[in-house]
Parts: sequence; C-alpha cells; structure tokens
Amino acid sequence: MRAKIITIGDEILIGQIVDTNSAWLSSELNKCGIAVGEILSVSDNGDCISSCLDEALRDYELVLVTGGLGPTKDDITKQSLCSLFACGLKNDEASFEHNRAMLTQRGIPFTELNRCQSNVPEACTVLFNRNGTAPGMMFERDGHYLVCMPGVPYEMKTIFAEQLAPRLDKIFRLGAVYHKTMITTGMAESVLAATIERWETDLHEGLKLAYLPNPNGVRLRLSSYTLGKEEAEHAVEEAFRELGKIIPDNIIGYEGASVESAVADMLRERSYTLSVAESCTGGRIASRFTAMAGASDYFLGGVTAYTVAVKSEVLGVPQATISEYGVVSEPVARAMAEGVAALTGSDFAIATTGVAGPSGGTEQTPVGTVWMAVKTPWGTVAEVRVFNSEREVNIERASAYAMDMLRMQLKKAKA
Amino acid sequence: MRAKIITIGDEILIGQIVDTNSAWLSSELNKCGIAVGEILSVSDNGDCISSCLDEALRDYELVLVTGGLGPTKDDITKQSLCSLFACGLKNDEASFEHNRAMLTQRGIPFTELNRCQSNVPEACTVLFNRNGTAPGMMFERDGHYLVCMPGVPYEMKTIFAEQLAPRLDKIFRLGAVYHKTMITTGMAESVLAATIERWETDLHEGLKLAYLPNPNGVRLRLSSYTLGKEEAEHAVEEAFRELGKIIPDNIIGYEGASVESAVADMLRERSYTLSVAESCTGGRIASRFTAMAGASDYFLGGVTAYTVAVKSEVLGVPQATISEYGVVSEPVARAMAEGVAALTGSDFAIATTGVAGPSGGTEQTPVGTVWMAVKTPWGTVAEVRVFNSEREVNIERASAYAMDMLRMQLKKAKA
Repeated sequence: MRAKIITIGDEILIGQIVDTNSAWLSSELNKCGIAVGEILSVSDNGDCISSCLDEALRDYELVLVTGGLGPTKDDITKQSLCSLFACGLKNDEASFEHNRAMLTQRGIPFTELNRCQSNVPEACTVLFNRNGTAPGMMFERDGHYLVCMPGVPYEMKTIFAEQLAPRLDKIFRLGAVYHKTMITTGMAESVLAATIERWETDLHEGLKLAYLPNPNGVRLRLSSYTLGKEEAEHAVEEAFRELGKIIPDNIIGYEGASVESAVADMLRERSYTLSVAESCTGGRIASRFTAMAGASDYFLGGVTAYTVAVKSEVLGVPQATISEYGVVSEPVARAMAEGVAALTGSDFAIATTGVAGPSGGTEQTPVGTVWMAVKTPWGTVAEVRVFNSEREVNIERASAYAMDMLRMQLKKAKA
Repeated sequence: MRAKIITIGDEILIGQIVDTNSAWLSSELNKCGIAVGEILSVSDNGDCISSCLDEALRDYELVLVTGGLGPTKDDITKQSLCSLFACGLKNDEASFEHNRAMLTQRGIPFTELNRCQSNVPEACTVLFNRNGTAPGMMFERDGHYLVCMPGVPYEMKTIFAEQLAPRLDKIFRLGAVYHKTMITTGMAESVLAATIERWETDLHEGLKLAYLPNPNGVRLRLSSYTLGKEEAEHAVEEAFRELGKIIPDNIIGYEGASVESAVADMLRERSYTLSVAESCTGGRIASRFTAMAGASDYFLGGVTAYTVAVKSEVLGVPQATISEYGVVSEPVARAMAEGVAALTGSDFAIATTGVAGPSGGTEQTPVGTVWMAVKTPWGTVAEVRVFNSEREVNIERASAYAMDMLRMQLKKAKA
C-alpha cells in the first residue's frame, strides 16, 4: 500500500513558498501504515495537472493532492478534475452555507469568487472544510483513490484528520510500517556515529537506522518496513533502551520532543518556574517556550535586552561589570540570568549575550560567540560557545544550547 | 533550459523534515533564468537513487540533487554515482585537509567516517564545501549536468552561490524567466481579488498573476515566461505602479519584504526606536525583529509579560486596571505599550495581550481574541481582533497585525 503526494503550485517551483504540507502528510500517512513512495511538486498549469494526476492514479493506490484550490485558483484544478473523471460541476450546499456564514462572521464580503468555491465535480465525495472556504474532494477510479485538499496548512490538516483519515481506515487494510525517532542533543553527527557504532552494527536486521541532524541536535530514526507491528515495536524499544545506556545525557525524548519540551516537562513536574533574559537570541527562547500550549504553567516572562541600557536598568546588570568585561562576557551573562530571576521571582532563568552576526564581531569576540548562563536555586552556571555560522543558525543554536544547559541542571536536580 | 530538483532522504518521505532546500534552489535557479520543471523527493535507497538520477539526466539539462551525503550516509549515494558514471572513488586532498582542520578547530575528533567524506567519484568536478565536511560534486553526460550537494541548508547555499552559480553561468546561455512579487497585508484573498479584478483583467497578456496567501497577508506574483527581459521588467513595473494606486495602504514592499522589514526601514530612516511588550505573542514579535541583521539600529528591547505580576511590576500596568477590565483588554494593552516605552525610553512600542489557545478562552473572550496597542510619540492606538485559528497561527497573525498597526502609524507620520 503506497501513496504519492503531489503539490500543485508555481509558487513552489519558483521557490516562493516551502512545501510543509508534504512533510506533515507523509508523517500522518506513515502513522497509518501507508508508505509514501514519492513527493512531487508540479506547475499549476492545466495540462501538467491532468497528466500528473492520471499517471499517479495508475501507479499508486492513493494520491493526495494539496494546493490548486482557493478563491482565485479554483478554475484550472477543478476543470482538470472534471475532465479526468468525465463529469460536470455541482454546487455543494453544505459548503456554500458554511462559507457564507464564515465570511459574514469575519466581516469579509461574500463575493462571486467565494460562491464558486462551493462548486465541486459531480464525481467527488466532499470532504467538508470547517476552517476555510475550499472543500476537500475525494475520487475513486478502479480501486485507486485521489484526494484533493486546499493548500492552507491548518485547513488541510483538519480535513485530513477529521474527514479523510477515518475513510482511509475503512477503505484500506492498513499495514505496519513502523518508525520511532529518538531526539538527541550535544553530540556532533560524526562523534555520535563513532560512539554508537557497535550498537548500530548489532541492530536487529529488520531495523533501518537514519541520522537526521539539525541545528538543535541529531535525531536517530529506527524504521521497520518488514516486521510485524508487535515485533517491530519490541525490537525498536529494545534497541533504544540499549542506546540509553550508551548516551544517557544526550537523549531528550522521542518524536516531536525538543529541548524546550523536555525542559517544560521537568519544570512542570516539580512546579518550578522559569524566566529568560535574551540579548543575541532576541526573544527566540521565550518564543520557543510560549509556542507550546500550556507555557503559562511554568513560564513567567522574559526580557529581551538588546541595549546596554536595558541590561543595566531593567535587569540590573552593574554598569561597572559591563565596562570592565564587555557586553559579551561571562559576568554579564550571569548577571542577566540572576537579574531576570530577581525581577520575575522565577526559580530558574536562562540568559544569552553574544554576537549573532553578520557584523559586530571583533578579533577577540568573533561573530557567533555567545555567553550563556543558567540561574538555578543552587547557583548559576555559564558557558561560552562560538557558533560559527550565519545569523539565523547562530540564534537557533545558541537558543538550543542555552536551553540544554538548563535541561542538564534539571536532570542533575532530579537524580 | 529546464532543471529538475531531487532531494534524497527517507526523512522527507516519512515527514520528519521539511524540504526547504528545494524552495531555496528553485528561487535561485529562477533568478538565473532557469525554470524548474519538477521537484521530486525519493528514498535513500540505492536502486531508487540510480534510476531516478539516470531518468532525470535524460529529461533535463540540469539536475540538482541535495541530501544523501554526510558522514553517516555517504556510501549509498556515492556508490550510485560511481556506477552511473562508471568510475571509482578518489580522495580529494583539498577537502581532506579542510575537514581535518575544521573538526580540529571545533574540538571534534576526526574519525574514519570524516576521512571517507573527502572521497569522491573520479568522474566529478569537486565543488568545495567551506562550511562543512561533505564536498559538492558536478558531473556531465552528453551535455547534461548533474550536481550533488549536501542537504545541510547553509552548506548547500554556500556551495551553490560560490561554486555552482558561476559555473552554470559559463556553461549555459541563461534566458529570461522573470518574476516579481508584491507583498500585501490587511486584505483577505477574496476581497483583494474583487478589489483588483479590473486591474487583473487589464494585465499585459505576457504576464501571469498568482495569489499567495499566508498568515501575514497575500503576496501577488507577476511572472513572464515569454517576454524579453526588458519588456518583462517594464510590463511588471507598470502593472505594479497601477496597483499601487488601487491599494496604497496594503502594500508592504517586494520579494523578501515583510511587515517587520517595512517597519524597520521606516524606523531607521528617521532614527526612531522601538520596544515591545508581549503577552500572548510570547516573544515572537521581538524575535521577528531581531532575526533581521542590524536590528540594534532601532530595537531597544522587550518584555515578555506572561504573568499578571510581570505586567504590573515590570511594565507598571496598574493592578486596578487589570482587576477592573481583565488581562485581555484595551486598557491593559495600552498600559503595556506605554509601560515598555517608559521602561526602555523608546519612541514607539507594540503590545499584545490575548488568548493564543488552545485553552484559556471564555465566552466573553474566546480563544484567538487579542488586544493590540501601539504607542507613538503622538498617542497610543489599540485594536482587538479574534484570530480564530490554532495556537501557532493565532500567535503569527497577532504578531503580524500588531506590527502592521505600527506600520500604518509610521506611514501616517511620513505623509
């Protein structure tokens, strides 16, 4: 049982937008036991769409299409679908009523374009879109299925979860592709590979290992394509348990876990609170914590201290310390962490001060240099790193590193 | 002259990572006048790689491959390349020396895996990777070119810009695909389409229009595939000039422009300063400003005020105001903006207070409700919106909306 994902839109081929839908869909399909064979992006030109969909529907049992819908680009896609399934258009009343009500509520005028959005090819089953105006559509041909969904990510996701997944479950007898991913941090890919070489060699032969590095660390994915579900689960659990003995300090968690979610779990567990004082990371650490639902359980707040004045006046870093050691220094990082903890009354605090780049570096403090401090109830620790990369990566790495320093402190407290 | 982009890696097909490389490469190729016909993601399995590359090299004059390199996954890709071009491996001395020096500097041990990374197929031209350990490789067959680059984005980008682009320029006579994108905000896609309908109908027949919506607004892309470069540029300029008369307040800029970059430009122009006080956006606004190089020209700092205590004690929002109106209210938003401006001494300030979700909503203040205020030297303005979406989208939309309120104030000041 294999699927192909097709995204329609010149905006992808000219590099204007990044295709995040395919990654999300692949992940969901895999969870259902459907392997994705190919992901293809094509132009929103009628001929391309028709021939691609036709071919994909021949080769794959399931073809998921995103994009090519929406008030201003319905025409081409829906015409291609009508000709592919030899039918005309009909109006879907439920979608029509929903669209009119939704736009009225938002105070957006209901136009002719909106009216046309509830038209669908007669051959389709409508997949209701409660978050938007473009309904999803499902078609069948010789036991193969084609599903079209709008490209807006949260609309597509809701349609998939609420309308499509239950139908796929009924239609296909879903198999047992199995993946589990361990999230590690604090070890470069090559060092990690050398450290776990023997473990890798000894892996169950039905498992496949992949290394997935990013600025926050390296993820290790174990996959089974051939074992039965229970055997796969068991082999993976066993392998990760062994790995836990080899790199105990570098494991953050599994799947969607991140250094911030690991920290959040540990803070919550003990009713600890956190605040942050950020210079070069500029709000990124606060933003990563508050992006998670329920952050108010432990996150009190933060100060983005971009200037010397904010560092001294708001966070209470002594002017003399700044003059003597410079803004990017251990004493300033420590004083920032302690200052924001005092200001907010938090148990823990993270602070960063550094040179994100591309300019602002000196010989002594090159671009990428970041001092990071973590204030805990049992003292403050500080470290410096030189993240010699571009601005965005430096900010991301410094944020991850500083949060991981807190994770290590919390781990120590727990032990 | 058309290209195909192929990304290698099961991590994409199982949805573990989002393929951002293809978007970046597409954009760069388009700038060079090379149209991208297809983007394909395939498994990192030897048979798939060989057959895909072989087919792509037959159909396209240029094939760009990313991924499938790196200390732990070199083998399969390099073996496939050796068999495709009927050659063996050789060691590239420059890459070898570079890798050893780089890892030593970072304090990472040089392993056998790192040593193998400087091996390349004999048939290739090496594209030096100064940011990483996996060299790029370029192959030629019957006048068609295949280029393999590592998947790590900043390594790939540097190889492309420094090593590949100059070579492509020499090898191919580059044509004239032309795109320009206007960034708009503050108008829903359907309303925008209705507003500019006549303009769209009157467009030069050699131009193609695309609507690209995201949580920050709608981008309008004009493309020419058939006109000469000068004619295309002229027609696009003319069309956008006309559009500027129809929606003057909704245009932020072009290409990579964003509401924050437009605000930054206006602040810088007049040497104004900015600070932010964020509750529900949790540091996102600060983070978006500081993600841009040179933010310290105008950005003084910010306070992420997640608790009532931080709002009152750090930002000076009166307890009585909070008790009387509630945390998510106009008076609190105003007091936060004025408070952070007083604290940092900034000319302007942005504040947000709301319910990002998924929980925390009430009947009176449903999830997605956000009060936003902008403090200016000529007074403070405030607005409320209900962004009825998921947490991430609510945070993103509230951030964009609040920044756009500041943009409108700065625009007014300028007029």
